[in-house]
Amino acid sequence: MPYVNIKITREGATAEQKAELIRGATQLLVDVLGKDPATTVVVIDEVDTDNWGVAGETITLRRGRARAGGA
Amino acid sequence: MPYVNIKITREGATAEQKAELIRGATQLLVDVLGKDPATTVVVIDEVDTDNWGVAGETITLRRGRARAGGA
Amino acid sequence: MPYVNIKITREGATAEQKAELIRGATQLLVDVLGKDPATTVVVIDEVDTDNWGVAGETITLRRGRARAGGA
Amino acid sequence: MPYVNIKITREGATAEQKAELIRGATQLLVDVLGKDPATTVVVIDEVDTDNWGVAGETITLRRGRARAGGA
Amino acid sequence: MPYVNIKITREGATAEQKAELIRGATQLLVDVLGKDPATTVVVIDEVDTDNWGVAGETITLRRGRARAGGA
Amino acid sequence: MPYVNIKITREGATAEQKAELIRGATQLLVDVLGKDPATTVVVIDEVDTDNWGVAGETITLRRGRARAGGA
Repeated sequence: MPYVNIKITREGATAEQKAELIRGATQLLVDVLGKDPATTVVVIDEVDTDNWGVAGETITLRRGRARAGGA
Repeated sequence: MPYVNIKITREGATAEQKAELIRGATQLLVDVLGKDPATTVVVIDEVDTDNWGVAGETITLRRGRARAGGA
Repeated sequence: MPYVNIKITREGATAEQKAELIRGATQLLVDVLGKDPATTVVVIDEVDTDNWGVAGETITLRRGRARAGGA
Repeated sequence: MPYVNIKITREGATAEQKAELIRGATQLLVDVLGKDPATTVVVIDEVDTDNWGVAGETITLRRGRARAGGA
Repeated sequence: MPYVNIKITREGATAEQKAELIRGATQLLVDVLGKDPATTVVVIDEVDTDNWGVAGETITLRRGRARAGGA
Repeated sequence: MPYVNIKITREGATAEQKAELIRGATQLLVDVLGKDPATTVVVIDEVDTDNWGVAGETITLRRGRARAGGA
């Protein structure tokens, strides 16, 4: 009966990629803990890059700097 | 001071239905635990059917199969 | 397929009260949105009063002041 | 390695305000607990006012009443 | 920079099993979306069976019935 | 009416430090967005180091290696 929540930035993940995340996360719970896939729920949240921060700055800013030649 | 988060698939719940969920969840905390409704918060997340999985597959896929004549 | 998370302070809710919250929240989703109870998941988190704040102060502090004669 | 999730109603917070929330929350963890900002993650969820309730009613309703001259 | 939250019932998962969940979930994000593992965070919540419900009843009750000879 | 959830590893944060996090997070929402502190809720989750992973490994392992002389 596990519940898995995956949060990623909204940067174009396709429906097929999201389906793969759901398949893979469900299988992981089966493989490691023997959980029943029928009641395993996976929810993916896609978050705007303005709304996600790491190291005190938004992903928008980090992506912009990376594109400008930084890392 | 409870906090309730309700996640549902985004499939056309109306503003009135969401208001009913908020009323009902708040009343539940009052009835069962005597909580103060004034500080009870309810947040509803509506999640795209591509982003919700059960039994290792997306709700999009399950809905499509159901419409095609399956269960 | 809804998922409901109820966060309350850890202040002695009994197993029966928690079972009532689970029953009630599941029924709410059935009544308002016609959801299937078989795949409705409810998770209750009980949070220490030191770890919950409202109006910028912990519930521990608010409960102490209420017991001392304040509101 | 802290993770901070900030949920606010979707009412026009600007990218700069959200960047300030991310900076401020990260700094708070540094100041209070000496956490490493490099692995501190902040995620902001903006929630429609129809989907957020307090005291058993939606924020949409409360905002409407406030605008109509009530409190 | 993904964030993964895995909620399971507290029923004796070992430290090694939890480490496998963390490894597996991180690898899944690398494989499917090319995410950087260095900033991928996984948090596992273990929830008491009294605090988890499905189909309107607690896992405690369901486990008890299963042990008594039901399904 | 914001809701803030702060997840940290369970490594001895004191009640006073947690009260500071609650004060600081509440003040941040007041300062940046003019939110009403009276309905701002902060919940702190302390997570065992076995249950938190980054870069595919548990914090327990990372802390052990750091103590053994690595980084």
